[in-house]
Amino acid sequence: MLDFTYMVPTKILFGRNTIEHLGEELKQYGQRILFVYGQGSIKKTGLYDSVTDIFIKNNVIFHELSGVQPNPRISLVRQGVSLCREHDIECIVAVGGGSVIDCAKTIATGFYHDGDPWDLFLLGDSSVKKALPIGTVLTVAGTGSEMNGNAVISNEETIEKLAIHHDVLRPRFSILDPTYTFLVPQHQTAAGTIDIFSHILEQYFSPTKDAFVQNRMAESLLKTCIYYGPLALAEPSNYEARAQLMWTSSIALNGLLGYGRVSDWATHGIEHALSAAYDVTHGVGLAILTPCWMEYVFNEETKDKFVEYARNVWQIKGTDEMVVAKKGIEKTKEFFTTLGMPQTLRAVGVKQNALAKMAEKTVMHGDIGKFKKLGKNDVLTILQNAF
Amino acid sequence: MLDFTYMVPTKILFGRNTIEHLGEELKQYGQRILFVYGQGSIKKTGLYDSVTDIFIKNNVIFHELSGVQPNPRISLVRQGVSLCREHDIECIVAVGGGSVIDCAKTIATGFYHDGDPWDLFLLGDSSVKKALPIGTVLTVAGTGSEMNGNAVISNEETIEKLAIHHDVLRPRFSILDPTYTFLVPQHQTAAGTIDIFSHILEQYFSPTKDAFVQNRMAESLLKTCIYYGPLALAEPSNYEARAQLMWTSSIALNGLLGYGRVSDWATHGIEHALSAAYDVTHGVGLAILTPCWMEYVFNEETKDKFVEYARNVWQIKGTDEMVVAKKGIEKTKEFFTTLGMPQTLRAVGVKQNALAKMAEKTVMHGDIGKFKKLGKNDVLTILQNAF
Repeated sequence: MLDFTYMVPTKILFGRNTIEHLGEELKQYGQRILFVYGQGSIKKTGLYDSVTDIFIKNNVIFHELSGVQPNPRISLVRQGVSLCREHDIECIVAVGGGSVIDCAKTIATGFYHDGDPWDLFLLGDSSVKKALPIGTVLTVAGTGSEMNGNAVISNEETIEKLAIHHDVLRPRFSILDPTYTFLVPQHQTAAGTIDIFSHILEQYFSPTKDAFVQNRMAESLLKTCIYYGPLALAEPSNYEARAQLMWTSSIALNGLLGYGRVSDWATHGIEHALSAAYDVTHGVGLAILTPCWMEYVFNEETKDKFVEYARNVWQIKGTDEMVVAKKGIEKTKEFFTTLGMPQTLRAVGVKQNALAKMAEKTVMHGDIGKFKKLGKNDVLTILQNAF
Repeated sequence: MLDFTYMVPTKILFGRNTIEHLGEELKQYGQRILFVYGQGSIKKTGLYDSVTDIFIKNNVIFHELSGVQPNPRISLVRQGVSLCREHDIECIVAVGGGSVIDCAKTIATGFYHDGDPWDLFLLGDSSVKKALPIGTVLTVAGTGSEMNGNAVISNEETIEKLAIHHDVLRPRFSILDPTYTFLVPQHQTAAGTIDIFSHILEQYFSPTKDAFVQNRMAESLLKTCIYYGPLALAEPSNYEARAQLMWTSSIALNGLLGYGRVSDWATHGIEHALSAAYDVTHGVGLAILTPCWMEYVFNEETKDKFVEYARNVWQIKGTDEMVVAKKGIEKTKEFFTTLGMPQTLRAVGVKQNALAKMAEKTVMHGDIGKFKKLGKNDVLTILQNAF
């Protein structure tokens, strides 16, 4: 096990009607709030009214920033920073999925940055110093942003999608009511499940050999996705399925699986270049790319990890390790197909002549991947195989 | 999944030489410190010198409270509270295992309690309101006290051993350096491993049917104990074995496995009555009692959970569920025996005529157990079977 510092101070209020605690949580952080949300679905579901009623009852002065899109844009972050400065905002409340939360996080730290908030993504994590406190009300399970210090933002001008990570970006509290996800459409539920699954795999496929408890915990979360993902699709209002996926999304990326070992993150790197260029849903991109990444990096040398995965996650029997390992990859593909995911980049509208540029963007800050290091040509081959 | 509030803010500094961070961590909490430790083993290992050197270098004014015994006594807690009041202490540093940390936690909250600190155990958790900040340096893996809000204290006058639980008792930081546990004797290493194992079982054997991800995570931690417990006994300086057990001890009881479901805790209840009367090592008591608890509560109605346990933790095959379940219990016994644990109360010096009193003490605040409710006669039968 490698050395690590674990700090996950986010308070989680999990269950039906936990929104009732929003007022008392906010009291600790201030009276002037920026309320960030997406494209209006919370108005249809009534959540907008619940939240604003609580604001009013608690004498909170709130300003709204709406319209956060999937693959949230730096331009909206800039607007948010201006609003915070103009109204002397003390705390940000993000109501939505990962995109809304990531946008809120970037505003929260952009507030303290002299200059353009995109600088932070170019300068890297050490440039993040401070952030306004953030509270979230989660409406889509997937990114895990509700319990971690990560934010991913797209720059529509430079066609880049980059991430920052810092403990100051961890939400102070997150309200996780699984009933809010009952109305998440099938396609998005599937994409969210694959996002969770991929977060676990990126940490599971690690070059650190000694990570026994981390590996076993990762397997337990993968099994949860395999069990409850299809159930949530079949029965959108199945509370237990939604609850299990929601809590798993938070644990999958709050640090627990990654502390004490090196993680890979190559597939996410490639997918970010893809969704920066094509605005593909993140989980869909991951569903297409993950099996291709697996097939590309699988060989005699990396075999052991694939065998461990196939046996422990998919219960593949047999003594021929190469066969066992390959069956694990097959099972992964089948699982994604069961969830209704496309299998090729072509199917989501990607043009073949765009692949080289994507490969270039993927490695623009250096080679990617820790389980197996990938350069531009490796990435291009994976993209071509995924095409 | 049941509703829950998750809050585990303890910062963990894990790895070799993380003691180097003690000074900077303390800066946040004050200059006047109560330094609590056990019976002097830290003087032999040099840890006492390392810690006091850091205090001196950081201009910390420290007062010592040493002599904490296993099954820590309320009398020492009283001394600690007096010291804190006399010297206007701002923060407590506990260096040792669970007993030292539990003693420190009780001093930390006793400081704010008007009256005798034992009151808190009689009045219950709601009487705990506030506590001095605590930092820990862990030297024995087992109790998980380094990352939770629990404290167990013995009253030598009333022959009681009771617990309090409150989030204000969670350490602000804990330094986990696995090398500190290299010198933990075999017997104590085994007892610590069983303590971890039992904490997981107490949460795993739950009446809450819907706890998929919690169950799978519990199984992953049980497997870690099964794999690394014997290895730590065979190779006391095996870093990975010590590290895996240490981190597992923290995760096993920081809340992660219990949030979202009801836990049992009957075996711990019986063991506390046992070790209050006989000063038996906690893990040894658990090793004797756990299989007897399993055999007593196992029946046609509770079978499913035992089958799940046998199949997922011990990989028992077969279609006859009663047989599979019983093999799981057998495997548990074998595991404890492999670790060198005694199998009977008689073997640790318990007198048969003491059993009735112990059963009475166990249920003095009401029936115990949530997986299966146990009254005085149930407890007595378990004790007799364990004799």
